Amino acid sequence: MAHVTILGTGTMGQAIAAVADAGGHTVQLLGQADGATPVDGEVVVLAVPYPAVADVIAQRGESLAGRIVVDITNPLDFETFDSLTVPADGSAAAEIAAALPQSRVLKAFNTTFAATLAAGTVGALPTTVLIAGDDADAKAMLAGIVTSGGLEAVDAGSLSRARELEALGFLQLTLAVNEKVSWTGGFGVAA
Amino acid sequence: MAHVTILGTGTMGQAIAAVADAGGHTVQLLGQADGATPVDGEVVVLAVPYPAVADVIAQRGESLAGRIVVDITNPLDFETFDSLTVPADGSAAAEIAAALPQSRVLKAFNTTFAATLAAGTVGALPTTVLIAGDDADAKAMLAGIVTSGGLEAVDAGSLSRARELEALGFLQLTLAVNEKVSWTGGFGVAA
Repeated sequence: MAHVTILGTGTMGQAIAAVADAGGHTVQLLGQADGATPVDGEVVVLAVPYPAVADVIAQRGESLAGRIVVDITNPLDFETFDSLTVPADGSAAAEIAAALPQSRVLKAFNTTFAATLAAGTVGALPTTVLIAGDDADAKAMLAGIVTSGGLEAVDAGSLSRARELEALGFLQLTLAVNEKVSWTGGFGVAA
Repeated sequence: MAHVTILGTGTMGQAIAAVADAGGHTVQLLGQADGATPVDGEVVVLAVPYPAVADVIAQRGESLAGRIVVDITNPLDFETFDSLTVPADGSAAAEIAAALPQSRVLKAFNTTFAATLAAGTVGALPTTVLIAGDDADAKAMLAGIVTSGGLEAVDAGSLSRARELEALGFLQLTLAVNEKVSWTGGFGVAA
């Protein structure tokens, strides 16, 4: 069993907490009001919007050393909905990894809407969490948490694939906002 | 009914031809040996690998003026399988549109493996063709061909979304090559 800290109590934070809980893992769910509470999870999910990540790292960065840090963000320009706010050849995950050199950073959960984590399905397909990262053990640990919680997990490759995962998350959000897919649907993964 | 020319007789060209045919459209399927045969479709699908597109445009570019041109390519670096060969802030579709200013260029079919076009399913989901482009009428025409052929079609936005579609196609190919998904599966779209 793993101990998972989730920083952020929004819909995604709560949905990921429920998955970990369903898998029998212990969960520490911390919101903005819990700034004085130390992080104690071996896996720490940054379940905050991308613009808030820098603050979290400024506040908690040192305490994240040695831990697995999971970036779930979709760094969209929410004014134009026409681009990401990270460099075209980079990713939010790459920025976070650069800011946290002593953490093992993974990209995950940015392509699964909260409702699909709760339902366990994307339409007629099982919900699949795509996980990118450079540390195989860290990926395996997160995949274990996800699958024990009743979802599918797929190793999407190295952390550089976060760029494509963020493109996928971006595209999926534009489809949902334009009512081409619902918030209970989106991209499913068929084995 | 539309008349569709498909340039390229590989698995994708044949699969797209079968979709159009199933929808009751007429299809002109041209291979490399048919260089002297004029293109006559109102919709022309460039069903050749990305490295061959420049040659096709050099050969056929003038005759593509006034037509809807569909780019299906995934411009991968097939040696490293670790990046696309187009600029990070661009796309193959954007390059093709720049080279064919008198054509209405669409991006489509690059996120659907040939087997999913033939089967009509991606796992338990119906096969969905994502279509990006700047011309609404052109997108509607292609969507009509796709849906008459028994598949789903989704308007993925402006041609600038080709960048995200190419990221999705790239990611899906890496998953298939690494046996995380099969060539009959991949990313499905759940409404």
